[in-house]
Amino acid sequence: MEESDTKHDCGEHVSPDNCGQPMHQLMSELFPICRSITGNGVRETLRILQRHVPITVFEVPTGTKVYDWTIPKEWNIRNAFILDRDGNKIVDFNTNNLHVVGYSIPTDKIVSLAELQKHLYSVEDQPDAIPYVTSYYEERWGFCLSHNQRSKLEEGPYRVVIDSDLKEGFLSYGEMLLPGESRKEIFLSTYICHPSMANNELSGPVVTAFLATWIASKPRKYSFRIVFIPETIGSITYLSRNLDDMRKNIVAGFNVTCVGDERAFSYLPSRKGSTLADKAALNILTSLHPEFIQYTFLERGSDERQYCSPGVDLPVVSVMRSKYREYPQYHTSSDDLSFVTSSGLQGGFEVLRDCIELIEKNTIYRVTCLGEPQLGRRRLYPFIGTRDTHRYVSDMMNLLAHADGNNDLIDISNIIRVPVRRLYPLVENLVAAGLLEEVS
Amino acid sequence: MEESDTKHDCGEHVSPDNCGQPMHQLMSELFPICRSITGNGVRETLRILQRHVPITVFEVPTGTKVYDWTIPKEWNIRNAFILDRDGNKIVDFNTNNLHVVGYSIPTDKIVSLAELQKHLYSVEDQPDAIPYVTSYYEERWGFCLSHNQRSKLEEGPYRVVIDSDLKEGFLSYGEMLLPGESRKEIFLSTYICHPSMANNELSGPVVTAFLATWIASKPRKYSFRIVFIPETIGSITYLSRNLDDMRKNIVAGFNVTCVGDERAFSYLPSRKGSTLADKAALNILTSLHPEFIQYTFLERGSDERQYCSPGVDLPVVSVMRSKYREYPQYHTSSDDLSFVTSSGLQGGFEVLRDCIELIEKNTIYRVTCLGEPQLGRRRLYPFIGTRDTHRYVSDMMNLLAHADGNNDLIDISNIIRVPVRRLYPLVENLVAAGLLEEVS
Amino acid sequence: MEESDTKHDCGEHVSPDNCGQPMHQLMSELFPICRSITGNGVRETLRILQRHVPITVFEVPTGTKVYDWTIPKEWNIRNAFILDRDGNKIVDFNTNNLHVVGYSIPTDKIVSLAELQKHLYSVEDQPDAIPYVTSYYEERWGFCLSHNQRSKLEEGPYRVVIDSDLKEGFLSYGEMLLPGESRKEIFLSTYICHPSMANNELSGPVVTAFLATWIASKPRKYSFRIVFIPETIGSITYLSRNLDDMRKNIVAGFNVTCVGDERAFSYLPSRKGSTLADKAALNILTSLHPEFIQYTFLERGSDERQYCSPGVDLPVVSVMRSKYREYPQYHTSSDDLSFVTSSGLQGGFEVLRDCIELIEKNTIYRVTCLGEPQLGRRRLYPFIGTRDTHRYVSDMMNLLAHADGNNDLIDISNIIRVPVRRLYPLVENLVAAGLLEEVS
Repeated sequence: MEESDTKHDCGEHVSPDNCGQPMHQLMSELFPICRSITGNGVRETLRILQRHVPITVFEVPTGTKVYDWTIPKEWNIRNAFILDRDGNKIVDFNTNNLHVVGYSIPTDKIVSLAELQKHLYSVEDQPDAIPYVTSYYEERWGFCLSHNQRSKLEEGPYRVVIDSDLKEGFLSYGEMLLPGESRKEIFLSTYICHPSMANNELSGPVVTAFLATWIASKPRKYSFRIVFIPETIGSITYLSRNLDDMRKNIVAGFNVTCVGDERAFSYLPSRKGSTLADKAALNILTSLHPEFIQYTFLERGSDERQYCSPGVDLPVVSVMRSKYREYPQYHTSSDDLSFVTSSGLQGGFEVLRDCIELIEKNTIYRVTCLGEPQLGRRRLYPFIGTRDTHRYVSDMMNLLAHADGNNDLIDISNIIRVPVRRLYPLVENLVAAGLLEEVS
Repeated sequence: MEESDTKHDCGEHVSPDNCGQPMHQLMSELFPICRSITGNGVRETLRILQRHVPITVFEVPTGTKVYDWTIPKEWNIRNAFILDRDGNKIVDFNTNNLHVVGYSIPTDKIVSLAELQKHLYSVEDQPDAIPYVTSYYEERWGFCLSHNQRSKLEEGPYRVVIDSDLKEGFLSYGEMLLPGESRKEIFLSTYICHPSMANNELSGPVVTAFLATWIASKPRKYSFRIVFIPETIGSITYLSRNLDDMRKNIVAGFNVTCVGDERAFSYLPSRKGSTLADKAALNILTSLHPEFIQYTFLERGSDERQYCSPGVDLPVVSVMRSKYREYPQYHTSSDDLSFVTSSGLQGGFEVLRDCIELIEKNTIYRVTCLGEPQLGRRRLYPFIGTRDTHRYVSDMMNLLAHADGNNDLIDISNIIRVPVRRLYPLVENLVAAGLLEEVS
Repeated sequence: MEESDTKHDCGEHVSPDNCGQPMHQLMSELFPICRSITGNGVRETLRILQRHVPITVFEVPTGTKVYDWTIPKEWNIRNAFILDRDGNKIVDFNTNNLHVVGYSIPTDKIVSLAELQKHLYSVEDQPDAIPYVTSYYEERWGFCLSHNQRSKLEEGPYRVVIDSDLKEGFLSYGEMLLPGESRKEIFLSTYICHPSMANNELSGPVVTAFLATWIASKPRKYSFRIVFIPETIGSITYLSRNLDDMRKNIVAGFNVTCVGDERAFSYLPSRKGSTLADKAALNILTSLHPEFIQYTFLERGSDERQYCSPGVDLPVVSVMRSKYREYPQYHTSSDDLSFVTSSGLQGGFEVLRDCIELIEKNTIYRVTCLGEPQLGRRRLYPFIGTRDTHRYVSDMMNLLAHADGNNDLIDISNIIRVPVRRLYPLVENLVAAGLLEEVS
């Protein structure tokens, strides 16, 4: 069963240079929803995103074989709490949805403290934080709470109530296809399967939605394939239905995750390490964020695990801010709306926008004359000689010297050590002057 | 003329993890024999080795052309000494066979001290050691002695006696062929041409004999070609009779020399530097002996000089402990049964055994599903989560992620930085589970 | 119009190991001439060089299209000065031809100090030096003077006189072709377009002329194409008339510039960076001048800009002493006959001679036997064993070990870390002994 739903509001006018605040606002709206790899939380998240971008929603039934996996039962939860012997609600799903282990089966029983402890999860060295725990493929129930709270629990009995369903249903995901001049595609993938966490969940779909709006607003060389999916089982499901097209068309892809805090920029390569996505990401990060952290594929942990698996081999990298597993707030209640900021989101948006822009503009050029062109008679550079115009002329001569019909723009930027942003207007002027031509 | 002699005792049961002591015992038995590039010392050495491994002995006549060389006359020696004017035997071949310059012609004459000095060899900066000197291709006679002894010599006359033969005969060498599933071969070469020295002579044939026993005791993918030969003239002779087969079949080879002391591990590459033998040696040394010394082909000095010569170009490396020429005892009487130890020999044996095992097991694998397999439902990892099981799962996922039908096991070990020993059982489990398959 | 003029004196006998003094003398003779990119200064320079080497002079008319450029009007100057209000000649072309901006149009007028300042050029941080300024493609007039003098100028009026012509004429350049056994060519290019400056002008043509004499005196494998041209417009002109032959025949080329002072040796690669010229230059510099400065193609600034431009792509490098733009005297009156010395020129000559000799001798060799040859019976090495003979034998064995029919002599020198000068006699001996053969 597939349902298409395309109400959205693409008419909004947000400057791509200043969209941190509206991104943070969208994130705040999505934050309270209890998402998991299936269920109504995913659907509601997609519905809110559809107000911004024209996402088509797909529903794949429980039991469907997807490569080595099977779509699990659908999980939904309405309420959950723990009552102490005085009837006080000491743990409450309604105050923080991280309190319940994801995919907990329905429960309503009286237990001793000893019995309860077997179902509790906390983190000793982060005593104030509620950890995030799931059990998708083994049926159990449990609660997460701060270590401080846990250590103060007195003897029971306790009543534990989890009002959830785990039954035949669907896995939901969203897809958006934006046709361009070419059928070749740039691919963006982000995940929507974690409950209330900000950097390692909502920064991804929010930045992706705003990238989609920006992409949709301009003429495009490449087509774009943009997906909002549950991690792992969702990407495997998506691949199992689209791999042939993806392998034929995708020239570069980005797994959009952890793009919202204000700390590092970081990069996780594709398995092969030298795809167009890698080239673009390394060029942008090296020139704009030279302090970025370069991870190896051994440190992977998101959907590049599927996209770069043998036989799939898509050119997908991750360009992130603080990488999952590498910051203390990761997978706890501290990864919240204050940890991710407007300015952090803006930075995450921009670095991905710059990578996409670079891939869109990346072309092999060839200079049209032998020997250096005589720039003087063409007035291709400003009249007043300053340090800036000197740099301008030097950039232009270096660009021309390496536009040999083999180097693409990324190669030239790397060789002549000039950020691509400074090359774009030069290329435009030189093409207009007939001195550069595209090599097809 | 070729004589085949195959008495041996392959039935002995020595643990490959604990064979240092029997190797040292065999070395002690071979130590007193006066070997040279031809003669009965070589034959007696081969005869003793035949009690352990089924070596076929070949005899090649004096005068035979072997590439740019000619098999020299055969040299045998029975006795040699110097008598002082009082008739005291001040230098005696029977106390140490290094006292006679190898290939000394027969001599019996009375000489002055001045005349005698022209025929003496000692090493000033190692005053207690007797040096090792030969003169294979220029007929002369001489004695070697410690510098201390030499400096105390009084005026003569002296009587010098060398009871040797230098006449038409044979060059002897041993060969052992162990067929495997494939006609492709792993090649081991070691030399038997030095008199009483331990690291730079006997550690080689002893470790090679025990490797041969271990190889013979197990099923094999590859066939093995194992030779015990005089250095240089022996390897040239062997090549001149076997090159076509060797070039067609050998996938990797090891020149076994200097594998008995307790100091460094070291590696001398093939001339091309990137053969399967190089890959295997570098993988094993890097993971198990990361402090190993990496020499260049410029520092070669044993039979890789022939095996890697232009037009021969076999994939042969040396994995050693203290390399010839790089330790003070080299080519003196100090390279003796105390310098080489049981534990030193065990280490030399093991590093070569590990290289051979790796080449035997090295295969290109391909994962059988697209996307990551769902390990959970297969119970491929232990139930109790510990630091070790975490490493186990991580190794398994990294192995699967790189089993793409192009990487062989050595490549994967290098990429994921996991010693091959930890990969072998994983590979076995994953093949059994149908998740990995060999690429032919 | 082309005029051929071949009076020269190639019979002179100057030792290539000791030609610094005569090179300095020729430079002194050329120094006073006022050269520019066109005009009689270029012609007079070529005429003096023709007394040493058989240069053919070509004259290309104003207005000729050369690729993206057009040959400009010819400029000649007879006199120029500034008179103060007392009639004193305070700036005089006859004392230093750098005083006039190159290509200044004819002028004779009375100007105020304020008006004069607009036409003056000086360098504040080198207050004693007269800078070098030109305006080839924009018609104006101007004077250059020391900053010290300029800052003392009093109120005018001043009379400025420039007795020059700027009219239809020719661009002049010189060419010399020396046929060798092969039609394949080595290319030398140097420029003759600056007035009185020594390192960044005359060291080039002077060293090139002496190289030409040395080349002409010996049998040659390669043909030589040697040009004396105005920089930029001259190399573009030459390319536009000869590119097809040059691309077909040139195997390596050197832009000869800044080869006369006593400081650094330096190297500017070809655009591709790995041509035969690069290989030869790097081998010679690394072994003989290991402290040399290695620039990148981004730091180019002479005729390699044309020779390495896309579509031209000639294998041309620069091997220099102090590179243009990298020494304080550059483009000022301080780049004079004392800055460039006999010994500096000798060093510049020798490094280029060594590169040329290497390219001439560079060949792929193959050893003629399998296994190591038996050098002993051939007496290929000296009888007395010394440190030198040990090195000799070691060099010989290493050379033979890598003469595999793939490595050329430069590769072997690099691999075995032996300067090519030490390999030349070895190669000769081994070829004579039949142990090495050339691979065609």
